[in-house]
Amino acid sequence: MLLTIDRRSKKPIFKQIVNQIHQKILSGELAPNSRMLSERELAKTLSVNRMTVVRSYDELQSLGLIERFKGSGTFVAVAHKRDVSKLTNWTTYINDNTFLTTNPIIQKIREHSRTMTNGFDLANGELAPDLFPSNLLEAIMRRISISDINLGYSPPEGIGDLRDSLCLSLDSRKSIKTTSACILITSGAQQALYLIANCLLRPGDVIAIESPSYNYSLSIFKSAGLKIVGLKVKKDGIDPKEIEHLYKSYNIKMIFLNPTYQNPTGTVMSSKKRIEVLRISERLRIPIVEDDPFSDLNYGTKALPPPIKSYDDKENVLYIGSFSKIVASGLRIGWLVAPIEVIKKLSDVRQQIDFGLSIFPQIIANEFVKSESYTQHIELVNDLLRFKRDILVTAMNRELKHLVQYQEPNGGFHLWVKLNNKYNESKLINESFNNNLLFMPGSIYGDKNGYFRLTFARLNNQDIDNAIEKLKLIIEKAT
Amino acid sequence: MLLTIDRRSKKPIFKQIVNQIHQKILSGELAPNSRMLSERELAKTLSVNRMTVVRSYDELQSLGLIERFKGSGTFVAVAHKRDVSKLTNWTTYINDNTFLTTNPIIQKIREHSRTMTNGFDLANGELAPDLFPSNLLEAIMRRISISDINLGYSPPEGIGDLRDSLCLSLDSRKSIKTTSACILITSGAQQALYLIANCLLRPGDVIAIESPSYNYSLSIFKSAGLKIVGLKVKKDGIDPKEIEHLYKSYNIKMIFLNPTYQNPTGTVMSSKKRIEVLRISERLRIPIVEDDPFSDLNYGTKALPPPIKSYDDKENVLYIGSFSKIVASGLRIGWLVAPIEVIKKLSDVRQQIDFGLSIFPQIIANEFVKSESYTQHIELVNDLLRFKRDILVTAMNRELKHLVQYQEPNGGFHLWVKLNNKYNESKLINESFNNNLLFMPGSIYGDKNGYFRLTFARLNNQDIDNAIEKLKLIIEKAT
Repeated sequence: MLLTIDRRSKKPIFKQIVNQIHQKILSGELAPNSRMLSERELAKTLSVNRMTVVRSYDELQSLGLIERFKGSGTFVAVAHKRDVSKLTNWTTYINDNTFLTTNPIIQKIREHSRTMTNGFDLANGELAPDLFPSNLLEAIMRRISISDINLGYSPPEGIGDLRDSLCLSLDSRKSIKTTSACILITSGAQQALYLIANCLLRPGDVIAIESPSYNYSLSIFKSAGLKIVGLKVKKDGIDPKEIEHLYKSYNIKMIFLNPTYQNPTGTVMSSKKRIEVLRISERLRIPIVEDDPFSDLNYGTKALPPPIKSYDDKENVLYIGSFSKIVASGLRIGWLVAPIEVIKKLSDVRQQIDFGLSIFPQIIANEFVKSESYTQHIELVNDLLRFKRDILVTAMNRELKHLVQYQEPNGGFHLWVKLNNKYNESKLINESFNNNLLFMPGSIYGDKNGYFRLTFARLNNQDIDNAIEKLKLIIEKAT
Repeated sequence: MLLTIDRRSKKPIFKQIVNQIHQKILSGELAPNSRMLSERELAKTLSVNRMTVVRSYDELQSLGLIERFKGSGTFVAVAHKRDVSKLTNWTTYINDNTFLTTNPIIQKIREHSRTMTNGFDLANGELAPDLFPSNLLEAIMRRISISDINLGYSPPEGIGDLRDSLCLSLDSRKSIKTTSACILITSGAQQALYLIANCLLRPGDVIAIESPSYNYSLSIFKSAGLKIVGLKVKKDGIDPKEIEHLYKSYNIKMIFLNPTYQNPTGTVMSSKKRIEVLRISERLRIPIVEDDPFSDLNYGTKALPPPIKSYDDKENVLYIGSFSKIVASGLRIGWLVAPIEVIKKLSDVRQQIDFGLSIFPQIIANEFVKSESYTQHIELVNDLLRFKRDILVTAMNRELKHLVQYQEPNGGFHLWVKLNNKYNESKLINESFNNNLLFMPGSIYGDKNGYFRLTFARLNNQDIDNAIEKLKLIIEKAT
């Protein structure tokens, strides 16, 4: 039972011991009925006063986590102190069907990522920690004057200053014309998707999404009872005609698209197709949800087609953006651009869910997006991502050419990899766990066995060769 | 058409004009079909270049908000540019039944509060802006080192440091023993209630709540399809026997209580009753949700009974706390203390809804609650609230003694007022709007006509006499 005591912490040592032992019981490291060190032994091991350990054990006992028997010692409690047969059975409350749990494969990967040491997490779709603009955000926190800001409840649609700034940035960076009243600030793109799935659609409604697509594994769609039909992703995006085709068989209520550096394929939909998709959706009266987290990451090399929303002069597109992939996912700032009546409805619902977003990330994000360093930061991230991509592609061409195929991405931070040989996906996942190199298996994205997604934005440059060698080993064992 | 141009703002002037005109069209101040100032006239009025106004009008036209006719001038567009008969009809998407809208009376009061000038908002249940610890929070933002912090996705249950700090604070301030693993950080108490109502209960489930109670007006309960039965609030809280009584007729699934400075009555449940309620709930296996936003505001005068949760040795109580009423509602930090299996389920659902809370308010809150200034701040707020209460009670005894009755509160920040004479509530509300003095009418809290709630935490000391005179006028006109 290895515990670490932080003597500089303000947290009392007895409480540090309580929390860590509870964690070990929860994780199963301390099994039910197993004998604990005696108070004296633990005090000696940790070099703390025996009375400190006595106090910890007292609290663990009163929490029902351990049992002490005179003469025979201290044991991890066998069951929880609550005897379910006599008391509230929480399981009956928890096992409802309203919210389905997160995809078990994703849960396992996240769990493994939390506990592994010295591994490579290429599954988690976020930037490497050193690409977050910590210094710039710290400088902003140093200069913001809080006394000028109302710290009371803020409008559920988001603070005006940030909506104004985004309005300008959408115009200059994305050619999207809108006004602040048509922007809703959300807790990342995730909350925008949650609100759309739960407030604008009804259980049983059919939605069309790209295939493959990250949306396949999103429990929000399943929890909201939506039915999913797929639009095949080709080299330059989905085939707009397929929407009309599907429409004949299904009463499609909404189309979810990620046209720029699509997750997971990295595909960019051509501008011709963007306009065609929009016109078809207008004619069939099916709104488009355009999820656009990656379009700022074009590596500075290529003129990207502007978002579908920029062509949308009839308000048929709900546009979702976010700072998660270009600033920091922990900021939790996303936005939805939508017709005013949609913004009003979703703001009211949002008031019921969480009473609006904290004022602090909103003022920090506003100061950042208004500043000159915002553009500089994005340019820097683009340079570093392109560099990572180049090293990665070189290593893969050298090591994996006989095993896999892939399209070299010109933006975003995913690599979509196809395996040449047949393989067993659960074996592949197991090998990835054994070797502490995590990636997202293809089945998460729909019926895409034989593929997997690597998020190279997470790799340190110096680790890339090492990681690709491990990957080779994993693939060879699983095929 | 009065527009204000901020020349020091980085926001281009043409965009300031666009946003303000759109706001005026949305608010109805600029009616459909009404003639706008010509470009030349508006440029002159605002002392801006005519080309700036031309650019604004171009954008407003492309957004479909105005129409320009050669020779006859510029007009506010009659309908939205989207012809609903030919395009997506958003109304059909918005009018689903999953989420009911906020109580219309509350909506109206909020709306009036946003637009009124020189009025007194005693409806909004939050602290006066000068009671927020702006300077202390600013000092924290100046000293936090962001480079040490992971700005990526943080655990959906909240960051470990804040959960550890709350664990200690719950022990020392509330006599609640728990471990960090049993704490979920939420976006205020609101999100904790949302998660409980939607993940632990099913549509049709019966919940028991205090009568009167703020929970009556909560659209989250109605949106979740819950049925509500009332437990009458007496001088020292509800009658525990009534739970058993109701249980014979209804299959009650949960009991929602706010035992300390209950909203709206200000009542404190006696410790005898707290223990009795807990034992009955254990025996009947009905969990209690204890909502406890006010217990830190005891004006330093009186030994308060500890929360029901502090007696809960069988994990039958879900305990909700928050910084909204003691630090700042705009921080959006609340917490739920619950059995570990409940925390796990709600964290997973929360991941689907918003991917967890922003890291920034969590680190700020953690630094604050750990600091010595936290206790000092709470003592200061208590002193100032007691002082406000004293001035208010003096003024009410002088002016309103013949019109109303009330119990002098010894904590919290609400005054629950009973009118002596019969009156018409909608007349009362109208008079309150006419006089720009807002309060919460009794009907919001269940069938409590003849009552209203004043939040005196919002009043400036020097305004109290003035406000009470207005209140007298309003009551006299409405009865």
